[in-house]
Amino acid sequence: MNTTSQMMQMHEKDMPMDGMNMTMMQECIEACAACEQACTMCAATMPGESMATCMNMCQNTADMCNTMMRMMLRPAGMHRESMMAALQATMTMCAACADECMTHSDMHEDCAMCAEVCRQCAMACQKMMDSMSGAMPAS
Amino acid sequence: MNTTSQMMQMHEKDMPMDGMNMTMMQECIEACAACEQACTMCAATMPGESMATCMNMCQNTADMCNTMMRMMLRPAGMHRESMMAALQATMTMCAACADECMTHSDMHEDCAMCAEVCRQCAMACQKMMDSMSGAMPAS
Amino acid sequence: MNTTSQMMQMHEKDMPMDGMNMTMMQECIEACAACEQACTMCAATMPGESMATCMNMCQNTADMCNTMMRMMLRPAGMHRESMMAALQATMTMCAACADECMTHSDMHEDCAMCAEVCRQCAMACQKMMDSMSGAMPAS
Amino acid sequence: MNTTSQMMQMHEKDMPMDGMNMTMMQECIEACAACEQACTMCAATMPGESMATCMNMCQNTADMCNTMMRMMLRPAGMHRESMMAALQATMTMCAACADECMTHSDMHEDCAMCAEVCRQCAMACQKMMDSMSGAMPAS
Repeated sequence: MNTTSQMMQMHEKDMPMDGMNMTMMQECIEACAACEQACTMCAATMPGESMATCMNMCQNTADMCNTMMRMMLRPAGMHRESMMAALQATMTMCAACADECMTHSDMHEDCAMCAEVCRQCAMACQKMMDSMSGAMPAS
Repeated sequence: MNTTSQMMQMHEKDMPMDGMNMTMMQECIEACAACEQACTMCAATMPGESMATCMNMCQNTADMCNTMMRMMLRPAGMHRESMMAALQATMTMCAACADECMTHSDMHEDCAMCAEVCRQCAMACQKMMDSMSGAMPAS
Repeated sequence: MNTTSQMMQMHEKDMPMDGMNMTMMQECIEACAACEQACTMCAATMPGESMATCMNMCQNTADMCNTMMRMMLRPAGMHRESMMAALQATMTMCAACADECMTHSDMHEDCAMCAEVCRQCAMACQKMMDSMSGAMPAS
Repeated sequence: MNTTSQMMQMHEKDMPMDGMNMTMMQECIEACAACEQACTMCAATMPGESMATCMNMCQNTADMCNTMMRMMLRPAGMHRESMMAALQATMTMCAACADECMTHSDMHEDCAMCAEVCRQCAMACQKMMDSMSGAMPAS
């Protein structure tokens, strides 16, 4: 178990919402971290003028994943509507970035790898949203 | 006119969506930049244990505003659904942060100032979303 | 006077170092904010394969300027050696980015504008470092 | 091997400096990522007014580690003086943050854990700097 997971468990009691699935949240933190790295590197290694859309969508996705990851690392700041809206944005951006990357994955192996990591992140966000729909505000 | 505004005008033609209101987008960029600064400073100067919620919501909002600002500074990466979802997240987080800050604005002048900047940012995002609802993909 | 400046003045007393020049620090905050925006946009609008170095140096500089700006917005966290090292890094990166941008400023007007903003940021960081060399730890 | 490591290996040939130790760089990327997470969470869970210094130094360190990590994920943008200055800043900030966290590690288990991750990151940056001192610009 890494340090982040240990710290998350220590602060499970500080979560302002009951019924949060901590295992799912840790998976989502890791998915966002991996997606930030893959998208940053994919954006940085795009060759050529025709790649402007992909390069910019990748860097946008990297920034959003970093923001989402940090939100999950701040238990006391969790606010249901904010979390749901940010998860929705992350999921939407990861899915769109994966689609864009796949349009030229045959030419660039990076894009195929980046698309896969984006899809995993989108799924992790979707699971968090489903899980939070059932969670209640801590009484 | 500042450098960012000049650069935005040079790249208006690169926007992948027709009918984008560039003046409105520049105002939204500035509102996000101001909100990142106010929220970062508000989070950093929160005194005491009872401020954990506010401190963390402020730092989350600062991170989201930075991501949103950067998305608007990357014309070629603009993707309608991603922009709409990110604007919705920014608006939701700014509004929630303003509400939280206002609960103790009588004790902390920073919080009153931060709440005002958050509200202005939420409004700027709402205007962008309204404007984009009418914009069409560039043909 | 904008909100950030007002908040900075309210917290001048919290600065852990005496003799900090607040006007200079506010100028440096604004220079970093402007540089993050110009570099983000310059990186996003680089056309073509030969621009990989410039694009990546610009995005690196944008990230560093954001970190530097945030450090100046957190008075209670100011630590002399950390501030000096971060200012040195920001100054070095801005100067290198300006040089790289200038190598193709005749072809890309963005790069000429970005280089100018980078130079102003490097100078603002240098002034801060000079100013801090004379400042003493608050007793 | 994770996706980032695979992508780094694919782009080893794009490194503008010969003799870079890729294994060391991958370790430094992971150390920065871990440090960003631990510091973000440590900053977010600081209870009480007396923790303002620690909280702010932790969030500063998180931001710097993110910037440093991204710089290593952008091979084409690597510039020797910029890399050395940013590694120096990251190392200085991580070491200072570890020292500050240790002053109250007996009261807060988070701080003891955060200090350990900060120290590992400072060491990883030091190794990178030592390694780069011997590396030559690619001819």
